[in-house]
Parts: sequence; C-alpha cells; structure tokens
Amino acid sequence: MRIGLAQLNSTVGDIDGNSSRILEMIGAARAQGTDIVLFPELAITGYPPEDLLLRPAFVREARRQLDAIAAQCTGITALVGFPELDRDLFNACAVCTGGTVGAVYRKRYLPNYGVFDEHRYFQSGRELITLRIGEALIGPTVCEDIWQPGPPATDLALAGANVIANISASPFHVGKGAEREHMLATRARDNACWVVFVNAVGGQDELVFDGHSLVLDEEGEIVARAPSFEETLLVVDIDSSGTVSQRLRETRRRGLVRERGGPPTATLVELAAAVEQQAPAHPEPAALLDELEEMRQALLLGLSDYVRKNGFSEVVLGISGGIDSALTAALAVEALGADRVVLVSMPSRYSSSETQSDAQQIAESLGTRFLELPIEPAVSVFGEILSEPFRDTEPGVAEENIQARVRGNLLMALSNKFGWLLLATGNKSEYSVGYATLYGDMAGGFALIKDVYKTDVFRLARHLNERAGREVIPVSTIERAPSAELRDDQRDDDSLPPYEQLDAVLEEYVELDRSREELLRDGFDEAVVERAITLTDRAEYKRRQAPPGVKLRPKAFGRDRRVPITNAWRS
Amino acid sequence: MRIGLAQLNSTVGDIDGNSSRILEMIGAARAQGTDIVLFPELAITGYPPEDLLLRPAFVREARRQLDAIAAQCTGITALVGFPELDRDLFNACAVCTGGTVGAVYRKRYLPNYGVFDEHRYFQSGRELITLRIGEALIGPTVCEDIWQPGPPATDLALAGANVIANISASPFHVGKGAEREHMLATRARDNACWVVFVNAVGGQDELVFDGHSLVLDEEGEIVARAPSFEETLLVVDIDSSGTVSQRLRETRRRGLVRERGGPPTATLVELAAAVEQQAPAHPEPAALLDELEEMRQALLLGLSDYVRKNGFSEVVLGISGGIDSALTAALAVEALGADRVVLVSMPSRYSSSETQSDAQQIAESLGTRFLELPIEPAVSVFGEILSEPFRDTEPGVAEENIQARVRGNLLMALSNKFGWLLLATGNKSEYSVGYATLYGDMAGGFALIKDVYKTDVFRLARHLNERAGREVIPVSTIERAPSAELRDDQRDDDSLPPYEQLDAVLEEYVELDRSREELLRDGFDEAVVERAITLTDRAEYKRRQAPPGVKLRPKAFGRDRRVPITNAWRS
Repeated sequence: MRIGLAQLNSTVGDIDGNSSRILEMIGAARAQGTDIVLFPELAITGYPPEDLLLRPAFVREARRQLDAIAAQCTGITALVGFPELDRDLFNACAVCTGGTVGAVYRKRYLPNYGVFDEHRYFQSGRELITLRIGEALIGPTVCEDIWQPGPPATDLALAGANVIANISASPFHVGKGAEREHMLATRARDNACWVVFVNAVGGQDELVFDGHSLVLDEEGEIVARAPSFEETLLVVDIDSSGTVSQRLRETRRRGLVRERGGPPTATLVELAAAVEQQAPAHPEPAALLDELEEMRQALLLGLSDYVRKNGFSEVVLGISGGIDSALTAALAVEALGADRVVLVSMPSRYSSSETQSDAQQIAESLGTRFLELPIEPAVSVFGEILSEPFRDTEPGVAEENIQARVRGNLLMALSNKFGWLLLATGNKSEYSVGYATLYGDMAGGFALIKDVYKTDVFRLARHLNERAGREVIPVSTIERAPSAELRDDQRDDDSLPPYEQLDAVLEEYVELDRSREELLRDGFDEAVVERAITLTDRAEYKRRQAPPGVKLRPKAFGRDRRVPITNAWRS
Repeated sequence: MRIGLAQLNSTVGDIDGNSSRILEMIGAARAQGTDIVLFPELAITGYPPEDLLLRPAFVREARRQLDAIAAQCTGITALVGFPELDRDLFNACAVCTGGTVGAVYRKRYLPNYGVFDEHRYFQSGRELITLRIGEALIGPTVCEDIWQPGPPATDLALAGANVIANISASPFHVGKGAEREHMLATRARDNACWVVFVNAVGGQDELVFDGHSLVLDEEGEIVARAPSFEETLLVVDIDSSGTVSQRLRETRRRGLVRERGGPPTATLVELAAAVEQQAPAHPEPAALLDELEEMRQALLLGLSDYVRKNGFSEVVLGISGGIDSALTAALAVEALGADRVVLVSMPSRYSSSETQSDAQQIAESLGTRFLELPIEPAVSVFGEILSEPFRDTEPGVAEENIQARVRGNLLMALSNKFGWLLLATGNKSEYSVGYATLYGDMAGGFALIKDVYKTDVFRLARHLNERAGREVIPVSTIERAPSAELRDDQRDDDSLPPYEQLDAVLEEYVELDRSREELLRDGFDEAVVERAITLTDRAEYKRRQAPPGVKLRPKAFGRDRRVPITNAWRS
C-alpha cells in the first residue's frame, strides 16, 4: 500500500484556503500513485479554532468544503480532519473516498489540560472504523487517542487492524518529538501494528506545530520521518502483509479476546486501491534535530507564520545592544529577511557607549534598516510634567519605567504609522519575575522569545554564531553582564539572583508546579527560592497583558498556565 | 429543621483566611441554634482557583484546614466545598459533623464552557448521599448539578430526599439572578422537594459572584432570599414534613421507580439535630434588584474586592470630561470612598474648554484629589524625535495614539511611584471595535467598565445621578457627543456607527455568536454590520492585552470568549 502523509500548514479560520491546499496535495498524492493520503486533525479549519467552533456558520462552512473535497476523491482516499456536527460536535476524521464522505471516525479522547480545551467544544466518539485496502486494514484515530496505551489502539488491533493511522495537531515543546517517537514505537510494538502518524505544521498564535510525521513498522522501527517545521507531502510504501507479524498479531489477538470475552466491533469500509503504481517509495527518514536547533526552528516558524498569517510584511524592534534584542533581531532576519526588519536604537543618558556601538554593529552585521532615536528629551519632559506630584520623592522604579515606556511609545508610533509588527524582546526569566516594564519593553504584537529562559538565550546566541561561522551577535553583547540600563551602573543581578540559579528554580516552580517547601527540601538556596517565587507570583498581572509568543517549554505563560491574578496562595 | 446559608466571600488562595471565616460563621450559626450550615462551592480555596489546583501542596493544605474545621463541628453540621484528592481530584462537598468529615459528595456535572474549565482539574463523581436530620432528608449537590433537569436532583428525590441542597459558585451576569430563581423553582416543583441554594459572593479577577442565596419550598415558592453582592449568614427554619407534599412525592416516586426498574441508591448519613432551638427564624426575603442596580452593585463589588484582595489602598484614573471616565470615577468613589481615588486631567491642544471644565467639576462633585498634568510639551517632543522617520507622512492614527500613550505613561508613573492601582476607563463598545489605544487609554490594572456597552454607560450615568438626587456626573458630560479628543473636531461617530446601532449589532455578534449573514437576514443595516464585525475581528490582539474587568454580560471578553488572534474567518 502506498500512503501519503500530508503534513499541512493550515491557517485557522481560512477554510477556503486550507481546502484549496488540501485539494492540491490530494492531486500531488494521486500523481504519485498513492492509495490513501492523510491530513492532520481539523486540517480544514486549522487547529485550534477555539470559539470559532461555537459559531454555527463556521461549522457549516467546514462541512460544505469537506464535501467538495470528498467529491474530488476518486481513485484515491483522503483522511481529513474536520469538526462534525451531528446534534453534538465531534473532532472527526472523514474518510473521503469514491467521491463522497464514506465514513467518519470521531475522536474518543479529548484533551483538556495544558493548552487544550477540547471538552469546551466536543463530545467523545465511541465507535471504531477500519478501512481495507488490499492486505492493509487501517484503523484511524485522532491525536490524543494514540497517547492512550489502551483503546482505541488496542481495540483496533483486536478488531484486526494491522495499520493504526493517527491524524494529529500535536503542539511542539522542546523534546516533544523524541517523546512522541518513543510513545509511537511502544504503541506499534504493543499492538504489532504499523503506525502512521501525520502531524500539523505551522505557527498559530502561541503554538507551533512541528510536523515530524512518522511511519513505524510493527516492531516500532522508524520507516519514514518527515522533516520538522516545514510543510511537506511524504509518500511511503508500507507492507503490512508480513506473515511473522500476522501470526504474532493473531496470537495476541486470541489471547486478548479470550480475556475480554469477545472482539471489539468496528465498521469495515472497503477502499479501492490506486490503479497506477510507480517506482517504489522509500524516502530516507529526515534527520532528528538537537535541542538548540529545535528551539531555533520553532522560533523561526512561529514568527514567520504569525507575520504571514496576520498579513504583516515588516517587523520593528528596539535594539539596545543587549543580548535579548540581539537574539530577537537575528531570528527575525533569518525568518523574514533583512529587508523586512527595522531596528531602532533609543539611547538614554544611561546607555553606555559599548551597548550603543553593539546595537549599531548588530544592525550592520544583519544588514537591516537602523534608526536612532535618542529619548533623553522626552524623558526630561516627563520629569518636568511630574515634578510637582513627584516632589520630595526619591527616584526609583517609576522613573526607570518612564524611560522604557517612552521607548514603547516610539516603537508603537512607528508600528502604527508604517504597519510594522512590533516585536517585544523579553525572555522567560524576565517574564517570570516581572523584570520588564508593562507598556515599555513588554509592548508589542509578538514577544518572540518570551518562552526562552535567559540561560537559553545565551546558548541560542552562541548557536546562531556557530551556525553562521561569524559574529552575527557580537561576542561583547554575549559576554557583557546583563543590564536594563535604566539607571547608572545598573546590573540585572542587583535585583535578581544570578540567572543560572534563577532559571533552575523557575524550571521547578513554573514548569513543574513544585512548591517552596519541596525546593528547599531538594537543597535549593532559600533566598533564591524565596525571591524567585515571590516575584513570579507578584508578576501575574503583567503577564496577563503580555503579547503572545512561541511556546517552547512544557508550560508556557498564556493558555498553558492559568493562574489567578487575585491569589493569596504563597507556597 | 433550622438551616444556615453562609454566603461567604472567600479569597482565592487564602486557605487560612477562608477557613477562619468559615469557623466564625459556623460559630454564629451554632449560636442561632442552626442544625446545618451550608458554605459555597470550594469555599476553602475560593473559586475559581484555576491552576493552583495542579499544585499538590495547595490541595493538601485545603484538606488539612477542612479537617481542622470538621473538628470544630460538634452540635452542628457544616457542608463545606473543597477540592478532594483521592487518586483523582473532585470538586466536593464535605459533610462536617460530629467532629469529623462524615461523608463527601462529589460534583457530578463539571461545567467546561463559558468561563468554566472544570474538566481541566476534576473528575466527575458518581455517588449520591443523603443526610437525615429529624424529618428532613437532605441531598447535597454542587453548582452545575442543580442546573440539570435529570439526575442528581431527580435521583435524590427518588431516593427519598425532601430537601435538595446546592452549594454553588455561580458567577453573575445581568439577569442571571432571575434565571436562577426560575430554574430552582422548576427543580423544586418537579421533584416536590425543598431547594436550598447557597452561592458564593465577591469579586475574583473578571468574575463577580452575586450571592443571592435562596430557600424554596416544594412548590417552588421563595421562602428566603439573601441579599445580593454582600457576605451574609441567613438562618431559616424549614418544615419538610408536610403530608400533602409527602404524598405527592411518594406518588411520583412510585411512578418513576416503576419506569426505571428500581430506586437509585444513596448513602444515608444520620445527623444530630441541634439541641437548643430559639425563636422561629423566618427572615423577610431580600428585595430583587433591577438591571441597572445589578450592574451598579456588581461593578462596586468587583472593584472593591479587586482592590482589597490585591492589597491596594488607592486608585488613580485619567479624567477627560467624557462620560466613560466620569462613570468610572463615580463608581470608584462609591466603592472605595473619595479619599482613595485620585483623578488626573491631562489636557492636550485638542481638549475643549468644556471637557476640561467638566473634568474639574466631576472631581469637585466627587470630592477627590485632582491633578492636572498638561501633556502638550511631551507630545511636541515625540513629534520632534519622530520628525525624521515621519517626514512626508500625513498625521493620522499614529499621532493620535502618541497622545493617548503619553497619558498612559503619566498615569503608570503615578501608579508605580505611589502604589495606586490604575483604572482603565474603556467600555465594551470600544473594546469590541478596538476604538481604544493599546498602552494608552487601555493601560491599567483593572478596566472597570470594559463589559458595559456604551449605551449602558449612558443609562448607568443617569441612574447614578438619579440615585444621588444630584449631578454627580454633569449633564453636559452625558449629553455631549462622544469624542476621543485626539484631533480637531473629532467625534466617535466619524469612525464608528452611532452607538445605538453599533451596540445592537455587537449584542448579536459578540454575545450570541451570530454570523454576518444571519444579521443581514434579520434586517440589520449592512454597512453597520460590516463595520462592526470587521473591526471586532481585527481588534482581538488588543483585547488580548487588555486589563481584566468585571464580567456583566453573558459573554465577556477574556476567559469567556476565546477567539484566536491569527484568524482568517470572516463571517
């Protein structure tokens, strides 16, 4: 059997555009003699469509376009994810075959944790279907279904399936690809079935889908792997007729059926095989990416898709000569091209000559437009306007924030005037402890590196330089002690623990929900724990008003971590 | 039987404080000879605790404090909402009696729509319990359970219960109180049972719980009603021994049990009656509020609780002489007192003498502190700094926004310097269509009236004046054509449809998810529909960065309406 894995980059809400792209890929698959081509979960609407699913007109239109796609499915079968309205709403997989929707499988397990809200929209399906093409008996499943060690995978195997197909929109975090391969290999071996996993690709607000679609044989070996972070159609021949695995399946099946008192039932759909077979299709599996490459590529795709899908053409950001804005600028140039990135230096009396020269050097090294807008006159005027109410007070955070907000105002003015998307440049360590100015350096439409801890900012900066074989980001920028430069001789470690220690605590507290007591028991430094947790709790109101950015970690701020602002819990 | 309805104002996360308050109210109930006192859903943790529920230490501490409360429950029974960890997590109602937790009921129906995410945290319970005190057989339920026309209410009645108790944290929107009374009356009549409904009260971020606890007899008549929007302990005698209703219940019961093949099972717990009975307790039901009073009181409680629970003492806001800031200021003074409100006028060259004089008059009429900070010098400096990049462009939205953001910067500087909470003053019509400046007039920690449509802003302003019997808000402010005053002779209706027409479309599109096509079919003006929907879709990125504010409507922006930013759906 020849199978196509259509690793599609849908746009949420663009039912028209997604459907056209699906038809194009069906055509390309047909031209390669593919029997059956699989599209990701909710491929027609994009994932996650969130509350668009509550609009009847939206769901109706998805169905209309699905039927139009099915009408084109002759000589080939396509599995297409769509929201199915049948009194209740289901997260469904349509079997488009013979010019019609021949059957529908409804997702059984609806994730409602982390970034997922599927119980908000969907009801669970209960039925199984299997699809026969020659020797192959394919059991379709949707995303979360395959993460379950039991049914529906085991039930499909018991019902005779030798191929478990899974259409997914499985969001990325660092390490997720390896985790998924491990899980799918277990599923294949446990059920003595081939596993065909097709994942969505692309950026959607905070989420990036990494693609990384896979075919595994009955022994859990990777037979094919699509590249991560790019749209692709992967065509693979699979042979599920092996007698050894058949016998193995049969033995297991008899044992399990005996235990359970009867085989599960599944509706069987007979599919036509493609008429024309060409040269064998056994593409070399794409290489696995290491952690820094995963992060880099996720950031590039997340940004370029946010820009493209929201109709922007250029981005602007403030460049301070510090490492966060340097990294953001370098990534933006790589994602969009130098001619679509504008860097703005906004020096104040506290900006050192070193950072100013680094800022300029970064713009030169990246080849971008560069504006210099000194903010001193504006800062002085604010001082004058506020001189009466601020009389007899000591300069402090209020005065520091005025500078950051003058910069925010200038960048937003450029954004409003020229339609440039403003990128905020804060990292996850800062966003955790609130070491960032709301409406100042937090201003922007997209906060690209908001889920990158500061220690990883350094690693990524060095990685970019290594890949480029030159100082894309000046070594002086990487090696200088971090400073917000909002007062004389300021350094981040005046206010915060050293980043290595801070990030280690944040990993435990933010990503793993561990308590103060547990961290102390594990030997973390008490002062660091106390400071990190207190500041993180206190900054929730700021994060609530932060721009979206690319989720890279198991628990990103935003839809992933839902903590009340009004919250008296201290532990 | 004497029953206590403890309409508690918990603070989310303050397990210690909530538990102390619960013990105080148990003491007060005992002093009045109460047999059983009911506390709201998750009274110990506050509702909704959101992802705090994912922290094991938090759930453990809630249990520890529950046990300490139960130890004090002698001579009285208390039903207390808490998160129960027993492998899975349940939204549970503890029966604290005889010095211990004698039984636990686990919520069966977990809402996962609108503002609710309960499937994220909880598993459903399956068991029923009933509690006998003398003639009364009480069946406890939790919040959503009672909204179901079938079980658990019907099953409790079939199992012999004559009182259905419901502990809730049911968030307010305009009209919800009447809706709840209607539903509870139906439930009482259908099951020929008394219904005792205890609701939480208080503000929590975007939500306000309105209290409005109730006792209804078996015929659905309101016997007792607690006041809305305030913490209270309501003590009521109920007599569930009426022979007519007993006979009615028995007849229905036999019929239903016949149909279903057997009565449902419930675990019976015998409770001691309070020893000492005093004078009969039949308090007069609190009066119902009309729509404007509901809105006013919800706004007052939402604001005062946000301020108190987050440890602020004063608030600051910009006062323009327009109606939105005037209403916000008047509500803030009513919620907090004039000495805790600071009003800041920030005139520009576009501020008319009329609005400036109104701004001053409002501060005088309310008796607040008043600062005047003219922004012209700052706006000019921004013009100079940007003169080069803005060369050869026409003045437009970018220049208008600079002014709004200069004001935002000044207000935030005051907030940072003095620890005043900044109130944003935008209304729902503006937030819908994005007629507001991000980081400008949208800046703030709390956007009090963000869920009030502009047409309701006018109604509320007149209502406040009527209640006060004087011009708290000047009539000139109410009657002047709305303007952002960001350019010469600007009026809102230069950019927007008239508010009556706009709000009518927004009610359909935002609250009811109706499509462009449906609105046109219903005869709405095409140009208005087109403009309202296009602008609303385009402003999602702004709303995502807006401060929280009080939910007043069936669908508020925020956790209630989850629409993607990247969204190509146009209908």
